Amino acid sequence: VVGVDLGGTKVLAGVVDHDGKVLSRYKAKTRQYKGQPSELLDLIAESVHGAVGDAHLELSAIEAVGVGIPGALDPTRDLVSVAPNLGWINLPARDELSKRLNGITVRLENDVRNAALAESVLGAGAGSQSMVAIFVGTGIGGGLIAHGELQRGTHGGAGEVGHTVIRAGRGLCSCGQKGHLEALAARPAVTAYIARHVKRGEKTTLVGRGHGKTDVQYLTSGDVEAAVKKGDALATRAVQRSARYVGLACGSLVNLLDPQLIVLGGGLVDAIGQQYLDWAAEAARPHILSKLAHDTPIVAAKLGDDAGLLGAALTARQA
Amino acid sequence: VVGVDLGGTKVLAGVVDHDGKVLSRYKAKTRQYKGQPSELLDLIAESVHGAVGDAHLELSAIEAVGVGIPGALDPTRDLVSVAPNLGWINLPARDELSKRLNGITVRLENDVRNAALAESVLGAGAGSQSMVAIFVGTGIGGGLIAHGELQRGTHGGAGEVGHTVIRAGRGLCSCGQKGHLEALAARPAVTAYIARHVKRGEKTTLVGRGHGKTDVQYLTSGDVEAAVKKGDALATRAVQRSARYVGLACGSLVNLLDPQLIVLGGGLVDAIGQQYLDWAAEAARPHILSKLAHDTPIVAAKLGDDAGLLGAALTARQA
Repeated sequence: VVGVDLGGTKVLAGVVDHDGKVLSRYKAKTRQYKGQPSELLDLIAESVHGAVGDAHLELSAIEAVGVGIPGALDPTRDLVSVAPNLGWINLPARDELSKRLNGITVRLENDVRNAALAESVLGAGAGSQSMVAIFVGTGIGGGLIAHGELQRGTHGGAGEVGHTVIRAGRGLCSCGQKGHLEALAARPAVTAYIARHVKRGEKTTLVGRGHGKTDVQYLTSGDVEAAVKKGDALATRAVQRSARYVGLACGSLVNLLDPQLIVLGGGLVDAIGQQYLDWAAEAARPHILSKLAHDTPIVAAKLGDDAGLLGAALTARQA
Repeated sequence: VVGVDLGGTKVLAGVVDHDGKVLSRYKAKTRQYKGQPSELLDLIAESVHGAVGDAHLELSAIEAVGVGIPGALDPTRDLVSVAPNLGWINLPARDELSKRLNGITVRLENDVRNAALAESVLGAGAGSQSMVAIFVGTGIGGGLIAHGELQRGTHGGAGEVGHTVIRAGRGLCSCGQKGHLEALAARPAVTAYIARHVKRGEKTTLVGRGHGKTDVQYLTSGDVEAAVKKGDALATRAVQRSARYVGLACGSLVNLLDPQLIVLGGGLVDAIGQQYLDWAAEAARPHILSKLAHDTPIVAAKLGDDAGLLGAALTARQA
């Protein structure tokens, strides 16, 4: 099968074998095609051909193509309802792509749900039947696995862990609402926390190292990681705060869903590593009601940037 | 089948036919048997016999008995791990009951999960495949239905909506943790809110009507209902606050699980009625991320006090 991880800046296509091994990778830039669906669909088809060629295969040897979409699908998963970063609205992407690929079977799935699926089958949750994945980066996304299957919900919207209320009334979310996990714990919340305290005169190694006071909010996960590793008190507190909110969400999710494990990933978690997981678990444990579920593992995602591609391949395999 | 709804104060057993019709009801008081498991098991068996007799049947005509337990079961559901109101710990209640009922098949389930199951099959969620139930009373319990099945989770603990964090750091929960929905929205949170404001000198029709200032915290859902119906400003605000927190949980649950509907029940919701549902829905809607899920119905439970009995019967039927 071919997995395609589609994003606002690039598309990555790869041939993946039955064991989840990536046989080829083909990358292309997508930014210039924002708002030009037809051209972007052409580019995706071209990337599939590229990945197949790089694996020294013919398209006829491919069983199906799975595509991860950075946006919302309709319940049939034939249509992309809205993908803001691509400028897509109500686009029948499944048929359009199939048409461009000699009628091959195409399956669409949300990109974050794909990553969760990949972690549950090939990554940190391999062998598990139920799992919650939380990815903490620019935003917070997630995915639910139950009975060994990705849970999509009634309208295909299930898994939006980032948009659950954790601290009612506090923290403005990208979606416009208050109190959501994303507003409290995603990377922008971490850098905003640092910026707020720098403004109040607090010292941090992040200022005076090429980052002006007003630039602190533009810090990357890598910048924050470096500061935490250096023992920067403010950066450490900011990350710990994020991890604790994610931990509260983990505790809540154990009480609500009682999964076999929780997997944490995404740019911020990957950058900080085990320390982030420890802080999250420490915050989560006291909230877990059931003694039997008290030690539910909270572990790091394993697949990194490959999760989207592998998840798309798994989605294709289900076709 | 016979359904048994077991509580800290009473046991209710009833014969239920294949259409969910209750053919007989047999009640007995349980309070005196707290910490005496063997005697209480005898009483439950006696109640089953009583219900069967009242329906003019023989025990041999009964296919199975389902029992709702006010506590936590082990994952096999053979054992009651802990039921505080009964004084039960690690009690092999399933076998013990079967033994007392000529070896008839017995199935145990948590009482709140039973009520959720009943609402999804015979009540407000009849015909649905996925549903979340939230029961607001002395505590807040819940249950999840997905793919037409009650979701139990890995250790049988799934569905504890009351113990999800909604406002981190605020409101001490019965479980000892802070910020849980139960701590913010269950009846004790409503009466504590009223008591707090009465102490600060705020006026309410609830004071001076046989309720001393210090007694306000002991108000029943009925007292609060009467005050709200009379237009009492403080009582109304207190109930609205509860409904809004429940609404935030509903919004979060739609984003997380995307169920077909959410059912609200329990003493406080039943007492206040549609007004409570309207307040909850009003708080929930803005938080729902997916346009397709925006109008997810938030409706009142239909089965009232029968939900536990009918759920126990459904649990028996699955045997």
